[in-house]
Amino acid sequence: MTGKDGMITQVDDIGWEKHLAARARRMESSVIRELLKLTAQPDMISFAGGLPAPDFFPIREVEEACHYVLQNQGRTALQYSPTEGFEPLKEWLADTMSRYGIWVEPDNILMVNGSQQALDLIGKLFVDPGTRILCSRPTYLGAIQAWDAYEADYQTVPMDDQGMIIEGLPEALDKSQHRPRFVYVLPNFHNPAGTTLTLERRKQLVDIARRYDLVIIEDDPYGELRFDEEDITPIFRLAPERTIYLSTFSKTLAPGFRLAWVVAPKPIISRLVQAKQGADLNTGAFVQMVAYDICERGILRQHVRRLRGVYRSRRDAMVDALHEHMPQGVSWTVPQGGLFLWVRTSDQIDTRDFMQKSIAAKVAYVPGFAFYPGGKGGEHSMRMNFSYSNEETINEGIHRLGMAMKKELAGG
Amino acid sequence: MTGKDGMITQVDDIGWEKHLAARARRMESSVIRELLKLTAQPDMISFAGGLPAPDFFPIREVEEACHYVLQNQGRTALQYSPTEGFEPLKEWLADTMSRYGIWVEPDNILMVNGSQQALDLIGKLFVDPGTRILCSRPTYLGAIQAWDAYEADYQTVPMDDQGMIIEGLPEALDKSQHRPRFVYVLPNFHNPAGTTLTLERRKQLVDIARRYDLVIIEDDPYGELRFDEEDITPIFRLAPERTIYLSTFSKTLAPGFRLAWVVAPKPIISRLVQAKQGADLNTGAFVQMVAYDICERGILRQHVRRLRGVYRSRRDAMVDALHEHMPQGVSWTVPQGGLFLWVRTSDQIDTRDFMQKSIAAKVAYVPGFAFYPGGKGGEHSMRMNFSYSNEETINEGIHRLGMAMKKELAGG
Repeated sequence: MTGKDGMITQVDDIGWEKHLAARARRMESSVIRELLKLTAQPDMISFAGGLPAPDFFPIREVEEACHYVLQNQGRTALQYSPTEGFEPLKEWLADTMSRYGIWVEPDNILMVNGSQQALDLIGKLFVDPGTRILCSRPTYLGAIQAWDAYEADYQTVPMDDQGMIIEGLPEALDKSQHRPRFVYVLPNFHNPAGTTLTLERRKQLVDIARRYDLVIIEDDPYGELRFDEEDITPIFRLAPERTIYLSTFSKTLAPGFRLAWVVAPKPIISRLVQAKQGADLNTGAFVQMVAYDICERGILRQHVRRLRGVYRSRRDAMVDALHEHMPQGVSWTVPQGGLFLWVRTSDQIDTRDFMQKSIAAKVAYVPGFAFYPGGKGGEHSMRMNFSYSNEETINEGIHRLGMAMKKELAGG
Repeated sequence: MTGKDGMITQVDDIGWEKHLAARARRMESSVIRELLKLTAQPDMISFAGGLPAPDFFPIREVEEACHYVLQNQGRTALQYSPTEGFEPLKEWLADTMSRYGIWVEPDNILMVNGSQQALDLIGKLFVDPGTRILCSRPTYLGAIQAWDAYEADYQTVPMDDQGMIIEGLPEALDKSQHRPRFVYVLPNFHNPAGTTLTLERRKQLVDIARRYDLVIIEDDPYGELRFDEEDITPIFRLAPERTIYLSTFSKTLAPGFRLAWVVAPKPIISRLVQAKQGADLNTGAFVQMVAYDICERGILRQHVRRLRGVYRSRRDAMVDALHEHMPQGVSWTVPQGGLFLWVRTSDQIDTRDFMQKSIAAKVAYVPGFAFYPGGKGGEHSMRMNFSYSNEETINEGIHRLGMAMKKELAGG
């Protein structure tokens, strides 16, 4: 109803639920998003988000690039642009990806609004109600959220410290009455598990995908943020005929641009382009051209080198602090790169219930259940982000968490 | 297959079609997008796109805003941000919309990546396979494209020069076995028809929506670009309890920002936020903050005033040129604002077939069929954009089109 000044003070509820599509009933607000709101309190140390370190954003370089793009190509930057993406940026990406084994043409690339949009468009193209998806448990919660909206079903595979366990997979597929349509993999510095899939397992997975005619979704947001050892051949390189590869500028340049890309065989890029036309017409030309300027001047490469050093040192700080402050029986992964590690608590702690006490102690994490389709599993696990906070804060946060856990184990 | 240097020279087709979801089979590339590619030839005069005039983009002001935002809030601008949108921008919008009768709070607003994303999210929330949508014929092709992807069905209503014909609608609804879930309306300067729905008809439509329990989608991208007469009360104002209102910066500021917004009752905003989390997490903070700076400094208001003058004069140029160059029997709408007018040719011309001859004569339009669900209808109509080209070019283009039509009518 509108009040006398026209302001809507109270609007009748027309019973919106009955107007909604069936899929809308399965959508839920992301656990992470809701948690982030809780953790916005002052003095909170949050390991919950997946945020890059804002102190290291290349702000001055972005400003120079904005200036250059607007001065020289302002009329193109502010106009509608092709759905496929800004061609010079796609050429730069094709060239750059060849260094880590992905040899493609610009026409194999589609620019999207963050990798989350790639996950959504893949859902739109490949997921019917009840379509089965093969993935690790745990797996990236954003993927679950994207595909739940298309009423997906999941077949999950356990993980160890080398990533998804491939042994036993053919038997599980043979036994399952309902064959998955695709397999979703995060091969490098898995979110949330922090593990890296070995080359041997990548090859085994490709063999299985070929045998069972599975499409492979290779989600690689952190691949360039490797601290230790050597790059491992991407799955795309091993099976270019059936792999859709996702990468992003969110972790290397800045998430505020919402800029990521998909690499796939051309018939699939055409389909993704159609889906993106209906979803949002095109990714903004302005941010693409600014990102291109930064890439092309060699700034991104330098910047990534710097970030690797910063994040390595923060990972080390978190691992050292875990050694120092955690009670007996707690273990964790030591990722070779990326933003996250995965902590396994003792069986006495349910990380979902314990969240409240942790927040009271002014430290936050994401409880493991958020990374399991349907929320079943991960009761004794938590995801910890080490990219956002500096070493001192990390140590203090882990100290608080360890204290709270010890108190809990001693009976609260 | 990978060649000896690792480049993917030829990739086996694994038979992707069989992996696709049912809905993907209904997706087609936008006719407009494909046409735009054809019309990229030199010397072509294109009335086909829906592009704002690039000569008038406020490039210097955008540059100043980028500078200000990065200098003062760079760490926020480049980081992840709330799905709901940048709060100060939503406050500014709530305040500004109150001038034309939409009195809401910032929590009634969701920022999206262009209105096309709003159409997509509405499809995701409200469209099951076979869900019926009530809309005018013709209607906006981007809406058809968004909702075809969710396997919508359409019930269409004819239009006259005052917009959708409401008389007869209750009878049509009573007769139809399958009740529509929502009605889609473009009340101001309709795309493609150029018509404006009268206040009387808006009220009748609201009565019908209440009687038949229909949600109303009010798509208003051009409302601020009114050249003549007075603003007409938005439908949202008449039925705030059941209307979802869409507007955008693409036509007033710049499409390259990909920035638009949805106004709706709060329970629907919450649902849209959930859908957007799965679709792309959030709209870029950077472009939202830059847009806010431009709005807040009063630049947008000045700029829109200027655009109204420019586009009015271009509309006049097109109407004058049509009078001068069109053969007998051709008619057109004279829109009170916006970017488009709608031409009805004589029955001897099929605008889809004629397209080829028109392109040969170096002038392009969008054939009417593109604006009819299923492509059935509009054989003797075409959409003409008058915002992109200057007066001289408009006159030359209409001259070419008139010549080509006269030649066609004289037997080719």
